[in-house]
Amino acid sequence: MRASSKKLVVIGGGTGSFTLLKSLKDHFTDITALVNMADDGGSTGILRDELGVLPPGDVRQCLVALSNAPQVRDLFNYRFEEGSFEGHAFGNLLMAALEKITGSFTEGVEVASRILNITGRVEPVLLNAVVLCMETREGKVIRGQSIIENSGFASSRPKFWLEPKPEVNPEAISAIRDADAIVIAPGNLYASLAPALLVPEISEAITASHAPTIFVNNLVTKPGQTDDFQVHDFVSEIERFIGAECIDIVLYNNTKPSQELLDKYALQGEYGVVFDCKIMENAHYQAIGGDFIGEIFKPNKKDLLRRTLIRHDSEAIAKAIIEVIHG
Amino acid sequence: MRASSKKLVVIGGGTGSFTLLKSLKDHFTDITALVNMADDGGSTGILRDELGVLPPGDVRQCLVALSNAPQVRDLFNYRFEEGSFEGHAFGNLLMAALEKITGSFTEGVEVASRILNITGRVEPVLLNAVVLCMETREGKVIRGQSIIENSGFASSRPKFWLEPKPEVNPEAISAIRDADAIVIAPGNLYASLAPALLVPEISEAITASHAPTIFVNNLVTKPGQTDDFQVHDFVSEIERFIGAECIDIVLYNNTKPSQELLDKYALQGEYGVVFDCKIMENAHYQAIGGDFIGEIFKPNKKDLLRRTLIRHDSEAIAKAIIEVIHG
Repeated sequence: MRASSKKLVVIGGGTGSFTLLKSLKDHFTDITALVNMADDGGSTGILRDELGVLPPGDVRQCLVALSNAPQVRDLFNYRFEEGSFEGHAFGNLLMAALEKITGSFTEGVEVASRILNITGRVEPVLLNAVVLCMETREGKVIRGQSIIENSGFASSRPKFWLEPKPEVNPEAISAIRDADAIVIAPGNLYASLAPALLVPEISEAITASHAPTIFVNNLVTKPGQTDDFQVHDFVSEIERFIGAECIDIVLYNNTKPSQELLDKYALQGEYGVVFDCKIMENAHYQAIGGDFIGEIFKPNKKDLLRRTLIRHDSEAIAKAIIEVIHG
Repeated sequence: MRASSKKLVVIGGGTGSFTLLKSLKDHFTDITALVNMADDGGSTGILRDELGVLPPGDVRQCLVALSNAPQVRDLFNYRFEEGSFEGHAFGNLLMAALEKITGSFTEGVEVASRILNITGRVEPVLLNAVVLCMETREGKVIRGQSIIENSGFASSRPKFWLEPKPEVNPEAISAIRDADAIVIAPGNLYASLAPALLVPEISEAITASHAPTIFVNNLVTKPGQTDDFQVHDFVSEIERFIGAECIDIVLYNNTKPSQELLDKYALQGEYGVVFDCKIMENAHYQAIGGDFIGEIFKPNKKDLLRRTLIRHDSEAIAKAIIEVIHG
């Protein structure tokens, strides 16, 4: 199949974007991955604190997903296992060094893109680092993406915002403006998607676009955050961040993982996202169901503790997106 | 001037090799830089200790000297200024990560060579890391390149050796065997050159070669180590390490730096290397004098404390080497 030359924008950051971009790059020549600038966990958090750089982690993942240089890709993903560097992804150090040398994070991303020989490009949504903040129903304010990611607020759909004032990256806006399709990647609804969509200029550009806006719905719920959420709940939260009913297409999984896997997930309080056909039939968006569950990801021991095993079949998602765009 | 396709081997490591290689790469298409594996100071020493990797520092400098990718070159040389990474050259971390990923230092060097788009190649002389050792006249044993570099032993020409047994890199041997000329770079006589030349297979290969062996003599003496050394003293020390009278050509500077600069050096106990024409006329090697002092290196504040200001005019040295080879 010949690759499409349609302009695709993929919004997100984190593992959801990574999985999707890895497949999309084989089908689209003009992809722009837009990445949130609120990441503050692990290696990225330390680099933010110690070096005062913009968060490199999610950008690195997107660069690696779009890379055509296998050895350099391995290098970017390598994590030091000992010494003062323990836990740091090499690509994060590279992004930090490039920001220091060029004096600009976006310029650093450009240099890294060349080193990694990527298809398409990666653009941070912001020119500054921000802190994701939320206020619980009880009025308690929580600050920091990684803390929020691990907080429970009983599916209460709390208020989120960014501090300080986000300075939008004009390249991100023009990418949305020129896009033939806007894809909102699956991922952690509050920790990965909210910080990208809460940027006023980003949500305005999405709303103003006449291109189809496609949301790839999550496969499983997150305990304490999206318990009992059905497909339409995820969509309504996405639209709450954007501030408008702007989703045109929702791609959702309509098959069931094996009972064995579901049981494993249930132990951690995670459940397959269900859907209500009646609600979706009457919605302003078109809901397209499919078998979107991919091969089960084989995690290493470390990953097993913190990452989900159920992954999107990103090939199937890519094909569904092509179908939407090209008909 | 068309670049020479003659096979050139440059032996050393450190700043002397760096300066020379930077110019040679514009005049020769087939350069192999051989680098000692005894470096244990600063960033390199920490990486050796903490990660158990082979010393990346000198290899990095040679790679950068031969690179044709300016931005990646800057990246390799970038030193982190804050946090847990303070003082680490980015290229050292990259070499360490590549060794971990590929499981082989030499393979890592190959990958780095491609990333840096280098002319020629860089080969460590050894497949293992070694410790440079010396015994003073008083019988005291000193271990470690960086300690030896900063030790004083009153020009006593002490005994040096490597621990543990060096495992020679066969690629280094075949490079010497195939070379049309062997250049021994200027540099710290005991800390940079000895650990390369003390490898038995390396010195045997140099001795066996029919290609001209060219030694680029140092410009200044080192206090406590080579005080009062004349050109022929440097040569005889080089040949002591190799164990044979195998130097064919010595390139030495026969001009004087400005008095102002000499005074500055004298304050640190460093003096321009003088020469005795009579001794050299009767030597087994041909001594070629020239104006080999380059533009004065403008160091930054940190460098000022530890680096010499007088540098070789590496363009003039390159031309002299071409003259030797091509006549």
